[in-house]
Amino acid sequence: MPQTVETKAPPIDAKIVNPFVTAVRDVFQKMVGVEATIQKPYLKMEAKTTHSICGIIGFSGNITGSVVLSFSNSAAMKLVESFAGMKLEIGTPDFADAVGELANMVAGTAKRNLGGLASISVPSVVIGDGFAVASMSSIPCLVIPCTCSYGDFAVEVSIKKH
Amino acid sequence: MPQTVETKAPPIDAKIVNPFVTAVRDVFQKMVGVEATIQKPYLKMEAKTTHSICGIIGFSGNITGSVVLSFSNSAAMKLVESFAGMKLEIGTPDFADAVGELANMVAGTAKRNLGGLASISVPSVVIGDGFAVASMSSIPCLVIPCTCSYGDFAVEVSIKKH
Repeated sequence: MPQTVETKAPPIDAKIVNPFVTAVRDVFQKMVGVEATIQKPYLKMEAKTTHSICGIIGFSGNITGSVVLSFSNSAAMKLVESFAGMKLEIGTPDFADAVGELANMVAGTAKRNLGGLASISVPSVVIGDGFAVASMSSIPCLVIPCTCSYGDFAVEVSIKKH
Repeated sequence: MPQTVETKAPPIDAKIVNPFVTAVRDVFQKMVGVEATIQKPYLKMEAKTTHSICGIIGFSGNITGSVVLSFSNSAAMKLVESFAGMKLEIGTPDFADAVGELANMVAGTAKRNLGGLASISVPSVVIGDGFAVASMSSIPCLVIPCTCSYGDFAVEVSIKKH
């Protein structure tokens, strides 16, 4: 039974992490024009997103679960500006669309890398402090911390391949 | 072009609302044991969820978009207790699973009522004050406010049939 007990070396499945690492590097390089540096992935032990601006994508089909692209406010502002080619205010529909589209591209690219017959949902974008995104407790959540010249972000991957 | 301009009588598509109204009534009656009263649906004009505990389900296939089941804290506590058959604390994985499962059943039932070939994602559960769930700006979001003896909740439907 998986439990959130103290453990120094949780198991990280490279077959799940690597497609997302490649996807983040590709999407951020091609679409935002920045090099993303990937840090050591870890297993999330609490139901709290890493940063306060999140694009959430659901997977269904033979991959189920969800993927959250989570940004700090300042990173999101700069990344969105570079991606959209103009400054967009947090809280506007265009800003949410841009965050959602980044999440969509990372999830879509990773889906192809994963090689499964899955569909991905349109993104939901959640903005605010003090909220938590909890995925299903039966699927562990891997956090892939990333950084780039615009600031920090993370990809939280909570999927299962069938 | 759809824009969030002042309008007293926004268009509400009964073909989209009715499957959710039926789904909410069915699921809450059968699975929670309460009668849900449905109030007048309205078009959401701001990117803010109606209540602070949300189960989000993504749709893909020939229905795209997302559906959010949004509860007040007190309604969620009582509904989850009745649904799960035991008291669960907000913030625990079991509580999030129960909220997610309610969202999943409402979305799944509505999907069958809608008659489309769509997949629904596993739920993401977001808990906290002061957050906003923004869906794609190209799809209007209909809020269906609901009430029952345990308190208030709402179904926020932001989907498009292709």
